[in-house]
Amino acid sequence: MTRVAIIGAGPSGLAVLRAFEAARLKGAEVPELVCYEKQSNWGGLWNYTWRTGLDEFGEPVHGSMYRYLWSNGPKECLEFADYSFEEHFGRPIPSFPPRAVLHDYIAGRVEKSGVRKHVKFNHAVRHVSYDPDTASFTVLANDLAGDHLVSDVFDYVVAANGHFSTPNVPKFGGIETFLGRVLHAHDFRCADEFAGKTVMVIGASYSAEDIGVQCHKYGAKKIIFSYRTKPMGFQWPEGFETRPLLQKVEGHHCVFKDGSSAEVDAIVFCTGYLNHYPFLPDELRLKTRTRLYPPGLYKGIFWEPNPKMMYIGAQDQFYTFNMFDAQAWYARDVLLGRIALPARDGMAADIGRWVAREEALADASEMIDFQTDYVRDLLQATDYPHLDVDRVAELFKQWEHHKEEGILTYRDRSYPSTITGTMAPVHHTPWMRAMDDSLAAFLNQPSAAE
Amino acid sequence: MTRVAIIGAGPSGLAVLRAFEAARLKGAEVPELVCYEKQSNWGGLWNYTWRTGLDEFGEPVHGSMYRYLWSNGPKECLEFADYSFEEHFGRPIPSFPPRAVLHDYIAGRVEKSGVRKHVKFNHAVRHVSYDPDTASFTVLANDLAGDHLVSDVFDYVVAANGHFSTPNVPKFGGIETFLGRVLHAHDFRCADEFAGKTVMVIGASYSAEDIGVQCHKYGAKKIIFSYRTKPMGFQWPEGFETRPLLQKVEGHHCVFKDGSSAEVDAIVFCTGYLNHYPFLPDELRLKTRTRLYPPGLYKGIFWEPNPKMMYIGAQDQFYTFNMFDAQAWYARDVLLGRIALPARDGMAADIGRWVAREEALADASEMIDFQTDYVRDLLQATDYPHLDVDRVAELFKQWEHHKEEGILTYRDRSYPSTITGTMAPVHHTPWMRAMDDSLAAFLNQPSAAE
Repeated sequence: MTRVAIIGAGPSGLAVLRAFEAARLKGAEVPELVCYEKQSNWGGLWNYTWRTGLDEFGEPVHGSMYRYLWSNGPKECLEFADYSFEEHFGRPIPSFPPRAVLHDYIAGRVEKSGVRKHVKFNHAVRHVSYDPDTASFTVLANDLAGDHLVSDVFDYVVAANGHFSTPNVPKFGGIETFLGRVLHAHDFRCADEFAGKTVMVIGASYSAEDIGVQCHKYGAKKIIFSYRTKPMGFQWPEGFETRPLLQKVEGHHCVFKDGSSAEVDAIVFCTGYLNHYPFLPDELRLKTRTRLYPPGLYKGIFWEPNPKMMYIGAQDQFYTFNMFDAQAWYARDVLLGRIALPARDGMAADIGRWVAREEALADASEMIDFQTDYVRDLLQATDYPHLDVDRVAELFKQWEHHKEEGILTYRDRSYPSTITGTMAPVHHTPWMRAMDDSLAAFLNQPSAAE
Repeated sequence: MTRVAIIGAGPSGLAVLRAFEAARLKGAEVPELVCYEKQSNWGGLWNYTWRTGLDEFGEPVHGSMYRYLWSNGPKECLEFADYSFEEHFGRPIPSFPPRAVLHDYIAGRVEKSGVRKHVKFNHAVRHVSYDPDTASFTVLANDLAGDHLVSDVFDYVVAANGHFSTPNVPKFGGIETFLGRVLHAHDFRCADEFAGKTVMVIGASYSAEDIGVQCHKYGAKKIIFSYRTKPMGFQWPEGFETRPLLQKVEGHHCVFKDGSSAEVDAIVFCTGYLNHYPFLPDELRLKTRTRLYPPGLYKGIFWEPNPKMMYIGAQDQFYTFNMFDAQAWYARDVLLGRIALPARDGMAADIGRWVAREEALADASEMIDFQTDYVRDLLQATDYPHLDVDRVAELFKQWEHHKEEGILTYRDRSYPSTITGTMAPVHHTPWMRAMDDSLAAFLNQPSAAE
């Protein structure tokens, strides 16, 4: 029987399990699936941990999420076409749920699919090798709880281990002399810790924006954003400052590129993450910065030199859960022989077109359109339930606009589901005053009838 | 030519390089040595890094040392018999040097030996396998800077990767609700960060003692030590409290086993480290808690089931640098055919005797005697220069006594070198007032003549 190894049981790996289960329910003969998950539960990043650095087994902690993390995009943009939020929660919920609610949603779909049996939890993949003579992969993994090494042979390997777990931490002059706490966003857990403090946040993307806002919300004295290329450009209220790039640190004293300086208590590197596949040999390993279309992946999935090696969710993203689904359904159909891959030069030419187009993108709106076209291209080839990507793209653009209108208030907006058509209810508490991020508090929403 | 892989270029790995170099200088034909070092410089833990968690390549940070770390034992107890502190610094220096001074000393010896050419820096070993048919090991490593995998074949492998890098982090009820910073000693870098704060330190060994004292020295409001089995038993001055084990956390509120409670700003896990060899397969891997005599290692070095696999510095320790030397010289002489290993049952019997004796040890004094006998046993078999271990043992016992006399003042003591006989000068500043831990500040010592 064909055997498929899936590395990681986060949203990407779970999409693959769900895709095969959907085919099986329709009568297809599906391969044997073995999903290796380093953590003790599934959900990937959405599986919160208080741990930082290394976990109880000495493995790098996967989780980068923090207490009080709420979705920073409308849930309507990531909704599964085969499992709506309304189906999961039994009623409509507001558009920006906290982490626990999204974890519940992701896990709920796969719990109901009965695919847990395919997952080996507490298994860290150490090394993958490919033998061209037998056309098979050998996967070596540590059974962490049992403390022994296991080895198994597969016909296909899917790397679904995400790319928001390995921090990119550049060095700044004098950083080793800094007399406060210095950390990467990956290790940020608790905004309360920074109450009353001056926090410098280095970076100008989602992590910087949200960690700055979280610290402000939970009582930081001042947030200083330090950007490399250009500032985020939001209208920041009192309590926020923006400076160009940090040049030098001396004790608590930080000097910026414009010659200005500030006394700082903590430095948070929001400097991004690395696509990191330490378990893959050179000939199977994607080497890329995080970008919308990593070169080398046909359809953003198949490793061009050896398309039995696949990647799900390896690209930077606007689309998340439903894009992973689109990829998983496509990969599944290639494995099931329903879709034929072109010859190698055909794959290379197709990759080349997408990469060239990506490199010409001018702004966020064009990036959204680009990824919309990418997802549409995958969706039209499979039986994944209808997803109106044009409508999703429209919501993304509205959301971008709403963020510009108010970086502290955009999470108070509501959007309609593209799956059910239902407009999301307004949350019972404006986000800036919603201090409790538990699932119970969030769902304790007066019904529309009340 | 015989080939030896050495994993790690800290004090243990460097001892092996030095041992072979010493033999070569005396005319021996020595094997080819390849030392894989994950960091960009040698010195192991003594190579300070401001980084925590994962490094610039996404590898677990090796370093566990912090700014302001001073030796917590007399340097006279770890002095190399073939390279005295006086030889390195050109004059006697005080007994408790800060980290940078000890790094300078370790590195100085091997710089002069010209062994740097054997070290592959920025190389993380991924996997080691042994093929009984060819009696050879294959070592797979990531060349981190080049971002590619390298593979090489060896006759012997020496694991010298230390055991103070992978934190042991138990879970306490409610820890995920804690509203301050929680970290393991491994990630502790900067005591200044805790000025004015109430810091709970969980543990009762060296890390707990020293991190508590560091935080006190740099202005923490209060240190609460929480112990599992028994308290450290030192006479703590005002500013320190001792409680039994933490039972539960709720926000900032911490409840202890005796029912008492405290409001805490930060929690530091000083709960030890794991012997961690994720790159070794089951049949070569030492599985042990950190202890004075890990079962399975003949002479504390040779992996009994396959003695071509060796471990240097895998045991818990009073003796450090000079014990690693004793092990390295012994391992070298086995490799050079100067010492014959007994048959497997002979090794097992010898291990059994040491382990039985270790398990009967009653107190620190007996532990010191035990490790003294262990080091003596190794030393008498090789040409390592004379080390008077009875004198070293005596210094260890004096030091234990001095710590009991004053946990904040024991570093102001001086001890005589067992190598040169010279009494160490008193440091120019009492330790509690010596805020600058740089090499320059430490060495800026008035000479005895002034």
